[in-house]
Amino acid sequence: MSTPPRERWRPRPIVERMDRAPERVRVYEVGPRDGLQAEPAVIPARTKIELCRRLAAAGLRDIEATSFVPPSWIPQLTDAAEVLPALADLDGVRTVALVPNRRGLDRAVEAGTRHVAVVVSATESFARANLNAARQAALDTATEVTRAAREQGLGVRGYVSMAFGDPWEGPVDRAVVAATAAALLAAGCSTVALGDTIGVATPGHVHAIVRDLAALGVPAGDLALHLHDTYGQALANVVAGLDAGVREFDSSVGGLGRCPYARGATGNLATEDLVWLLHGMGIATGADLDALAGVSRWIGAQLGRTGLPSRVTTALAAAVPAAGR
Amino acid sequence: MSTPPRERWRPRPIVERMDRAPERVRVYEVGPRDGLQAEPAVIPARTKIELCRRLAAAGLRDIEATSFVPPSWIPQLTDAAEVLPALADLDGVRTVALVPNRRGLDRAVEAGTRHVAVVVSATESFARANLNAARQAALDTATEVTRAAREQGLGVRGYVSMAFGDPWEGPVDRAVVAATAAALLAAGCSTVALGDTIGVATPGHVHAIVRDLAALGVPAGDLALHLHDTYGQALANVVAGLDAGVREFDSSVGGLGRCPYARGATGNLATEDLVWLLHGMGIATGADLDALAGVSRWIGAQLGRTGLPSRVTTALAAAVPAAGR
Repeated sequence: MSTPPRERWRPRPIVERMDRAPERVRVYEVGPRDGLQAEPAVIPARTKIELCRRLAAAGLRDIEATSFVPPSWIPQLTDAAEVLPALADLDGVRTVALVPNRRGLDRAVEAGTRHVAVVVSATESFARANLNAARQAALDTATEVTRAAREQGLGVRGYVSMAFGDPWEGPVDRAVVAATAAALLAAGCSTVALGDTIGVATPGHVHAIVRDLAALGVPAGDLALHLHDTYGQALANVVAGLDAGVREFDSSVGGLGRCPYARGATGNLATEDLVWLLHGMGIATGADLDALAGVSRWIGAQLGRTGLPSRVTTALAAAVPAAGR
Repeated sequence: MSTPPRERWRPRPIVERMDRAPERVRVYEVGPRDGLQAEPAVIPARTKIELCRRLAAAGLRDIEATSFVPPSWIPQLTDAAEVLPALADLDGVRTVALVPNRRGLDRAVEAGTRHVAVVVSATESFARANLNAARQAALDTATEVTRAAREQGLGVRGYVSMAFGDPWEGPVDRAVVAATAAALLAAGCSTVALGDTIGVATPGHVHAIVRDLAALGVPAGDLALHLHDTYGQALANVVAGLDAGVREFDSSVGGLGRCPYARGATGNLATEDLVWLLHGMGIATGADLDALAGVSRWIGAQLGRTGLPSRVTTALAAAVPAAGR
């Protein structure tokens, strides 16, 4: 067996447009917030700022940069008031901060935030575990914060976490998911992201939830999918979401963030893997895949990790030795 | 933040049937052949036999067990004549042996093989690198072997490798892929598996190839997809394949096998990840997911690997400590 004495091809998505695929979708980057909050390493604010700036330079236009949680909750994100203002000059980039309550909103506004995100669990167990509150009380808080933010002219994004499966309860009641998402939209959220926080969704489940929301009068264009790749299903669910009319997908550069409910397993869908899929389908994202892979390798090194979960970045680095940056 | 003092849910696919999904699909297991031939470790014939028997016990009914290649080609598979006959008593299981040429077919028949597979590259570069032959000569050999096997009453499966991208040539000419697959079917193959040998396919590409073959009169039901997960796209492509009418998918337990064109990257789609997807969509496979995860951990240990690429098996082992077998 002889190898042809020629140069290897540098792999990239081969574009074959998919029937009914949209021209463009929004890639909503959650690495700096959702990713870093689940990484054990705590990195300096200047590294977080540089991460966001590198992601913007790679073409991403929607970046969840930090979270104004009480400092005791998430030690990785105590520097939100330092990170957020340092991104104010990023042109054409929507930088979003998560706010868990009214106090968080006030701190975010003081720091100059123009876009916030609120989160509600679809299950009682996770509401108590994550937010230390009853589910309904957390929904009341989120809708109050949403209204207050809208009154101040801020944009608001909603999350419904544990929208598919819950680590204690198992399968989640779809009626609760739909009602929660509809309540957040009614309160003033521009988009609600349905979170598969433990990664157990499959495509029929995605279709069913989108259909449930349509029955409540919520169009698929008001929804985003926040998918985790714990069981390897995230991109299959993106295909199902596209088919159902969803046009916004969350991802984390490199697949940053882990799964707190399955130690050693993968958490967030990797942005590079999502962008590879979309570009291959002929769908524009604005992102530069090679630049993203470079950011992925860089932040992995900052965290002292030998590799992040992204299959695209792992394979690109391995496929052509000269490709490493 | 307090954790509810209750037992964790043991994750499993939550069944939500997908519109237009078939009742059942065939999972064609390639781990013992395609997986092991790409693993550096050489394991004894008795371990290979046990692997096949464990896979059958986990409910798989189509297992590519070995390859009758010349011993100098693939040191991992020199014991085909010992492995194959030891599986003759597996009830209701189709055990398949790859045969690269007429000599291989003769050896396979001597060993009692009832089902063989033939392989042709869609590209000139890979034909020369892998089979040390021109593409057309390899196709002629494969069609001759197919006819000879059919005359002896054997079942024959065809592969078109490098059907999407090639490590030297890049994007592959779809017309060559379609013509090659049609030629193999015309020669007597019952099914042709389209091989994404370097894992660069995306869903629109899958649709395009199935459409090309339909234009040549080949129904999607005569096709299988042999997908690699190198860039994380395999399950997205399964969803596209199902949508296009494909009803047979290749996979390797644990994701056994590596990518020779991207060292350190993932090769074959993992059987557990495929079965999770299908079961979640309400599609029967006959496989038992927990049993498959057990086989995956067992063969990983036999190979001295700390973990195989399957995200399902990794996450299941991590999600509930008591779940380990």
